[in-house]
Amino acid sequence: MKIVIVGGVAGGATAATRIRRMDESAEIIMLERGEHASYSNCSLPYYLSDVVEDSSKLLVMSEEKFLDQYNIDVRTLNEVIEIDRDQKRVMVKDLTSGETYEESYDKLIVSPGAKPIMPKSIGGIAMPHVFSLRNVTDIRKIEGYIDENDVKHVTIVGGGFIGLEVAENLVERGTQVALIEAQNLVMAPFDYDMVQILHKTLHDNGVDLKVNTALERVEKDRVKFSDGNSLHTDMVIMAIGVAPETELASQAGLEIGRTGGIKVDARYRTSDEEIYAIGDAIEVTHMLTGESTRLALAGPAQRQARTVADDIFGGEAFEALVTGTSVVRVFDYNAASTGLNEKMATAFGADYGTVHVIPPDKVGLMPDSHPMHFKLLFDKHSEKVLGAQAIGKGNADKRIDVIATLIKMKGTIKDLKNLELAYSPMHGTAKDVVNVAGLAAENILKGDLAQVPVSKVRELVESGAYIVDVREEKEYAAGHLNGAHNIPLSKLRERMDEIPEDVPVFLHCRTGQRSYNAFRLLSNKGVGNIKNISGGYLGISFFEYFNDLVEKRSPIADSYNFN
Amino acid sequence: MKIVIVGGVAGGATAATRIRRMDESAEIIMLERGEHASYSNCSLPYYLSDVVEDSSKLLVMSEEKFLDQYNIDVRTLNEVIEIDRDQKRVMVKDLTSGETYEESYDKLIVSPGAKPIMPKSIGGIAMPHVFSLRNVTDIRKIEGYIDENDVKHVTIVGGGFIGLEVAENLVERGTQVALIEAQNLVMAPFDYDMVQILHKTLHDNGVDLKVNTALERVEKDRVKFSDGNSLHTDMVIMAIGVAPETELASQAGLEIGRTGGIKVDARYRTSDEEIYAIGDAIEVTHMLTGESTRLALAGPAQRQARTVADDIFGGEAFEALVTGTSVVRVFDYNAASTGLNEKMATAFGADYGTVHVIPPDKVGLMPDSHPMHFKLLFDKHSEKVLGAQAIGKGNADKRIDVIATLIKMKGTIKDLKNLELAYSPMHGTAKDVVNVAGLAAENILKGDLAQVPVSKVRELVESGAYIVDVREEKEYAAGHLNGAHNIPLSKLRERMDEIPEDVPVFLHCRTGQRSYNAFRLLSNKGVGNIKNISGGYLGISFFEYFNDLVEKRSPIADSYNFN
Repeated sequence: MKIVIVGGVAGGATAATRIRRMDESAEIIMLERGEHASYSNCSLPYYLSDVVEDSSKLLVMSEEKFLDQYNIDVRTLNEVIEIDRDQKRVMVKDLTSGETYEESYDKLIVSPGAKPIMPKSIGGIAMPHVFSLRNVTDIRKIEGYIDENDVKHVTIVGGGFIGLEVAENLVERGTQVALIEAQNLVMAPFDYDMVQILHKTLHDNGVDLKVNTALERVEKDRVKFSDGNSLHTDMVIMAIGVAPETELASQAGLEIGRTGGIKVDARYRTSDEEIYAIGDAIEVTHMLTGESTRLALAGPAQRQARTVADDIFGGEAFEALVTGTSVVRVFDYNAASTGLNEKMATAFGADYGTVHVIPPDKVGLMPDSHPMHFKLLFDKHSEKVLGAQAIGKGNADKRIDVIATLIKMKGTIKDLKNLELAYSPMHGTAKDVVNVAGLAAENILKGDLAQVPVSKVRELVESGAYIVDVREEKEYAAGHLNGAHNIPLSKLRERMDEIPEDVPVFLHCRTGQRSYNAFRLLSNKGVGNIKNISGGYLGISFFEYFNDLVEKRSPIADSYNFN
Repeated sequence: MKIVIVGGVAGGATAATRIRRMDESAEIIMLERGEHASYSNCSLPYYLSDVVEDSSKLLVMSEEKFLDQYNIDVRTLNEVIEIDRDQKRVMVKDLTSGETYEESYDKLIVSPGAKPIMPKSIGGIAMPHVFSLRNVTDIRKIEGYIDENDVKHVTIVGGGFIGLEVAENLVERGTQVALIEAQNLVMAPFDYDMVQILHKTLHDNGVDLKVNTALERVEKDRVKFSDGNSLHTDMVIMAIGVAPETELASQAGLEIGRTGGIKVDARYRTSDEEIYAIGDAIEVTHMLTGESTRLALAGPAQRQARTVADDIFGGEAFEALVTGTSVVRVFDYNAASTGLNEKMATAFGADYGTVHVIPPDKVGLMPDSHPMHFKLLFDKHSEKVLGAQAIGKGNADKRIDVIATLIKMKGTIKDLKNLELAYSPMHGTAKDVVNVAGLAAENILKGDLAQVPVSKVRELVESGAYIVDVREEKEYAAGHLNGAHNIPLSKLRERMDEIPEDVPVFLHCRTGQRSYNAFRLLSNKGVGNIKNISGGYLGISFFEYFNDLVEKRSPIADSYNFN
């Protein structure tokens, strides 16, 4: 059995080693166009700061190790330029010698990845101070250019994973950074309300963040935007997204899916049964929507690789449907998400509910306890969990991993609230953040709580709605929402007559815990027209941080006070 | 509706506030024997170091707050001394005045907790320098005694959660600590092989750990053990376990279960329908064994409290079966577990398999990447996950939370290996630790790997078994198992003739990854009688740390090197 693999990073390298473990006699040839196979592409940005000091450490496995440990023939700087499906062979170009040669295969695995999008419509994009980031060669070029040209200011175009990680590492390095994003928010896996925390964090760390700003033209020392504004800069890094590498597959007549990725079946076979495709170049199926999507993530690529190896050697192989779980560090915040967000749930037509809770990530009296901002989406009918977003200084990834597991197992709100998770004061709270979200969602489903999101608060204030802030007087005095009335929860029973009966009333406290108690109190007393502001004063403060809705701009307190 | 609650900590306080949210008119009286209601009992040990500086911070809710925010009548230093079930009233003793009074109830919720076990058979246990730890009053007494008597050395008896946390906080404070444990290991939720990491950590941090050592007698400045040895000490803290507080329930004729806890039904009703019982005093049902057990944990107590409140007010209430998830910090290690360990699985009669993997908790080139020691138990027939233990410097709790969720959802090895978890180099690896365990377990189930545990290595060495260390020469030179032959994986193909065919061969590398590759290589070449040593050299080094099985004692390397 002779197996040829196109592409030597996450998917390709995993497929190669797994195949070797399954069959000692197979001939395995892995062809990689770039200088290196098997590098840690997710770690590339960390070379720009001191986190990864030596770029050679980014290389996970050398060609020698592939040969010595696995008897795998890895050829870097060897580009597959054509697939001859009839003859079952590939045409390879040795990029060092310029010569071409043929290699036959019994099975071909295509794992070419995805390339940074560099729109030709942007003027000046081919200039020498414009870079993109895909591999070790790229990051060495970027590092070299910064050093050699004494770069003081970098403009990063695109606020996704790579854009944010590059921004953070450049700031750590001492470089000034502007981050340009054409949409109204960075990090599209998050909803607009949650992502405000990241916007503020970027701002607080000195990143010149410009959302709703499209790059029109790059000049020698300047970037110009479509709104007419411009910015002086020494260097541009393009990170607006990636496009699947499908040329080779297209030319060979392999089917391309609706999303632009290579189409595969449940065993990752392309339209040619002898050719598999895996990784960032293919389209996958979303578990919750059943729709085709693309996902440029290392974990799924590795799982696909194993599935392919199993399929070739007669093991049980099946597609792992994706949920799109991910995490990013943005300075001192961790931001993780899984499943559907509101945009996706709306597009899918789900009848969903949300909760937005902000419990402490550890027991409040532990010194490094911080609020965890947690948003949960659930199906109102099946009560199944659909997605979650967590942002905080503590373990956002831990909470999202639990939700990702629950979604995979088709868990409901009832399952979530009853999860028995590891607790000690150093690690969490007796009711973990995710349990709290489950309990809050149960309250919504039972009708024990009605709410409006923080995104509606401006409208409420401007329309003169009756808003009650149930925090204590001193908290209110330190900063509050314009026009909010202060009736502390502790005095609500004696001051109930101040609650109007003829207009809708909106309640909030700091995180939502006390206002939930206030809601229940008023509701049990027969007050009908009340709603909680989900996300509380903390959520409002983040959402309206760059605006003027909050009177007396107080710092957004980080420490958790038990209500 | 008048509701009386006996006990004002986790279970009682949660029940009280939940009831208030469900019914504004209910009369709620919470009677607590101790000085304080609603304190963070899990945080008590941290008052002995600087982590919690002010003991008043341990108090979560004051009586005033209960009244102001919830209209709940909390009476501390009020002990319920009798339940009159016929008349539906309790007799209460005001411990301040010494007077008794009656309080009627419609529903009674008993949440008295569990008390430290202080065996009268131990001589001198009533001496004034012998303490136990249950509440804020206790920790203040301990702190006061240490200060006033200039205590230099403390003997802690019992290596469970409280014993370990007290030991750590005393060491942080600068106190010398001896930790005495009658069993052969601390932290019974862990198996003997895994717990060696904690034994070494305690030892490395200066704790004088004595396992297999039973306390016989306390003297003025000395503790004596049943083996005849003794130890000079200034103070003794008893932490050998807790016993459910069942006297009140017993006297009232409520049924007590086989395990010694108060017996309840699926809605936490005792044998009297008007009386509920929750928290550490009851017995609960284990999800995996279906057997009654006891669990002194805050999370389950809070869930039980909510269930009771729901049941009283007509909501849907049902028992949450327990899996026993927990976590403890032991100096720089985090140790978490869930579900069944080997002792429990054996007692239950499960036909289970195990894997012991040691992947890095983050991408290896990130500066704070550490090995995560991870042991998984699974049912060999249903392939369901039964339990897991994780110990490492990184997020052990995160990995165990995922497994706890999977167990709750009745997940299998296949589900585990396919979980799509949050990955960035700062947060994990593309295949997370738990995925790796799932893949390893699949290999075992498929017969792609056979193994022996580290606990068998001594027997192998002493019987002269043929052991092959497949690490590189320089790793072998830095320290290896007595008598192990070194054939690096990278040279195994050319040196295959050195592998004997007539005797069993045992393979190991550092963590198990390279030896798995070696196993597959030999197996695919037709070598039949081979087994992997699960846990690898790292596992062997921990297991035999206090012994002489490892030649040239090398430090147990912490950094992860990709194989």
